[in-house]
Amino acid sequence: MKQAPSEAALPRGFQFAATACGLKKTGALDLAILSSDVSASAAAVFTQNLVVAAPVLLSKKHLERSGGRMRAVVVNAGNANCATGAQGAAASLRTVEEAARRLRAQPEEVFVCSTGVIGVPLPVEKILRALPSLTRNRRPSARSFAELSLAICTTDTRPKTAASFKMAGKRIHLVGCAKGAGMIHPNMATTLAFVVTDAAIAPALLQKTLNEVTRRTFNSISVDGDTSTNDTLLVLANGEAGAPIITSGSKAHRAFILALEGVCQSLALQIVADGEGAQRVIEIEVRHAKSEAGARRIAETIATSPLVKTAFAGGDPNWGRVFAAAGRSGVKFDPALVDIEMAGIPVLRRGQPLGFNERAASNKLLADHVALVVDLHAGDAAARYWTCDFTSEYVRINASYRT
Amino acid sequence: MKQAPSEAALPRGFQFAATACGLKKTGALDLAILSSDVSASAAAVFTQNLVVAAPVLLSKKHLERSGGRMRAVVVNAGNANCATGAQGAAASLRTVEEAARRLRAQPEEVFVCSTGVIGVPLPVEKILRALPSLTRNRRPSARSFAELSLAICTTDTRPKTAASFKMAGKRIHLVGCAKGAGMIHPNMATTLAFVVTDAAIAPALLQKTLNEVTRRTFNSISVDGDTSTNDTLLVLANGEAGAPIITSGSKAHRAFILALEGVCQSLALQIVADGEGAQRVIEIEVRHAKSEAGARRIAETIATSPLVKTAFAGGDPNWGRVFAAAGRSGVKFDPALVDIEMAGIPVLRRGQPLGFNERAASNKLLADHVALVVDLHAGDAAARYWTCDFTSEYVRINASYRT
Repeated sequence: MKQAPSEAALPRGFQFAATACGLKKTGALDLAILSSDVSASAAAVFTQNLVVAAPVLLSKKHLERSGGRMRAVVVNAGNANCATGAQGAAASLRTVEEAARRLRAQPEEVFVCSTGVIGVPLPVEKILRALPSLTRNRRPSARSFAELSLAICTTDTRPKTAASFKMAGKRIHLVGCAKGAGMIHPNMATTLAFVVTDAAIAPALLQKTLNEVTRRTFNSISVDGDTSTNDTLLVLANGEAGAPIITSGSKAHRAFILALEGVCQSLALQIVADGEGAQRVIEIEVRHAKSEAGARRIAETIATSPLVKTAFAGGDPNWGRVFAAAGRSGVKFDPALVDIEMAGIPVLRRGQPLGFNERAASNKLLADHVALVVDLHAGDAAARYWTCDFTSEYVRINASYRT
Repeated sequence: MKQAPSEAALPRGFQFAATACGLKKTGALDLAILSSDVSASAAAVFTQNLVVAAPVLLSKKHLERSGGRMRAVVVNAGNANCATGAQGAAASLRTVEEAARRLRAQPEEVFVCSTGVIGVPLPVEKILRALPSLTRNRRPSARSFAELSLAICTTDTRPKTAASFKMAGKRIHLVGCAKGAGMIHPNMATTLAFVVTDAAIAPALLQKTLNEVTRRTFNSISVDGDTSTNDTLLVLANGEAGAPIITSGSKAHRAFILALEGVCQSLALQIVADGEGAQRVIEIEVRHAKSEAGARRIAETIATSPLVKTAFAGGDPNWGRVFAAAGRSGVKFDPALVDIEMAGIPVLRRGQPLGFNERAASNKLLADHVALVVDLHAGDAAARYWTCDFTSEYVRINASYRT
């Protein structure tokens, strides 16, 4: 388990608070707020699902209306506020209006995120009743950030946080937290992730940077191949570190990309590692493909194959399933040129099976983190993708979630 | 379990035989032959996987070279002869040459199919040693057909056969058998299906008819979303019933389509019902879509969602997962118009959740065959798709197959 970010890692000018407002039956933390003392550049990536929850629709609208400038996010767990009709839309709106009033901000500068059961009306009064003390109790502290990271959890077995401040020159901070134990959970819905930084960067460049980083991190992981109705990844940059504004293509921009990618990759891998029932993370690298998109598609097909994922659950060096999944990906390649390596052991070379010690291979495959390399010998592009193994425990969790 | 076809159901002019040549470690039947007394029209559908087994490559070539006229198929279980290089190609060729010699046929009139473990050299001598007595022992009997249906099994818990002779006018027969307990099993590989009939039909029309029927049957089922390196569906029509040749669009053609679809649908559903670890068949119907292709894509996305399939394992009326899977299918529709019905119970109308008795719904969902209807209210097209539930037993089977 990762340690929560220290006080020193926190970016300046952000405050956090969390409370238990009664949405989770267990009495656990289920409502949180994250705010910037000043208006911050904002960028976000949302679910591509056609079935979209009310808070996602409202947050998208606010991001557009505010021109990418945000002050705060209110987030609840325990109810996704999805497929809840006009009543659900009104609940999200009342939440941001009340939060904005308390923060003396414009409603369109406030984001709202929800995660939890689908199709059940959100008891918004519980949220509205809790908001006054929640906004009052905001603190710029590592402890309140840790509480935020706990409040957004649903089936997660542990909170997920990451920090990075490896930037050149001026000391700049970047921290993030995320929730999710599967790519979709319509009944506990969603991956949510929040990253805050005191770097100075314009909304448009922040969005462009986030899109690029997301492709290689949150969009390169899979627990079960499903995507949710509420997925949201939000980055706020408030410039409070006092460093010069980051311009496109500059050295500072490259450093910022690395830092953001570091935080997002760490959060994404923590989600995979906490995948429902998962015992291990499998890192799939497709090398020497004709295009990055093709490499990613092959890696994704392997990463979502139930037969590959169950083989990894049993520590089975079953390269035939990997080869066959690559073959059905829809990407053209020559099977006679392919090499496959599992946990460092070459098992296929130029399309021909190699002899190897099955017992030794099986032992290596039972590690917490296992590498799988597919080399197409067809070009210069590559992609990585992360998935987890598929266990009986996954089935148990998901067959019995509601009943 | 379906009963094997009776003597009366068998088409004229076909003979069958099976033997245990030592490919299966258990000493079970593992080699079979199916032959027509006269040259028969042939049509086939093969795996779309780029990674293709040697017997598939050879059979494709023979189908082309012979102009769609075939005499026999030799099929083995226990070894897929895939990823076995030049040696594997030679093994398939020697098998058809030896069978052709025994049958006094041209090699290009003989098909070969293999199913079993991938990447292990095929001990072709075992097959060659067994072929003389196998060809000698062919019989036009229901019992030998039943033996063929057993010899092709791998992880199947039961053989799969279907018969149909509901054709107008002249008495025409159609029987089929299939194997498969998943869409792919690279280490026990493949769905194989053989249908023989004494109808008279030209190869080109037979192929066109088979393509149409396959779309609605074998290509509308899923056990785990994977496709194999060896999948083959073959139809032979030898005209021995003495009925007039079937012409495109005629009444006889429509009757033939119905009969072939009946056999193929029965075989396809038997494969789903025998899906690894499956407790029930789920029939997904998407209604009032803009196009059949769109309807099928939505149905397929629902059918392959691990979250939907695990919910059905637990009898959970979890329509949120169904709705969310439809939403990520890539097909455009208006979520606010959607109705969903599970096991006859309306759970969503015009995008809004309906109240229902969860316990009563759960009981209905525990049946052997469960209907799921998604109505888009967007057009006139529809599609059906069949899948099975996803249980811990599936994981157990596939995590421990080799080790």
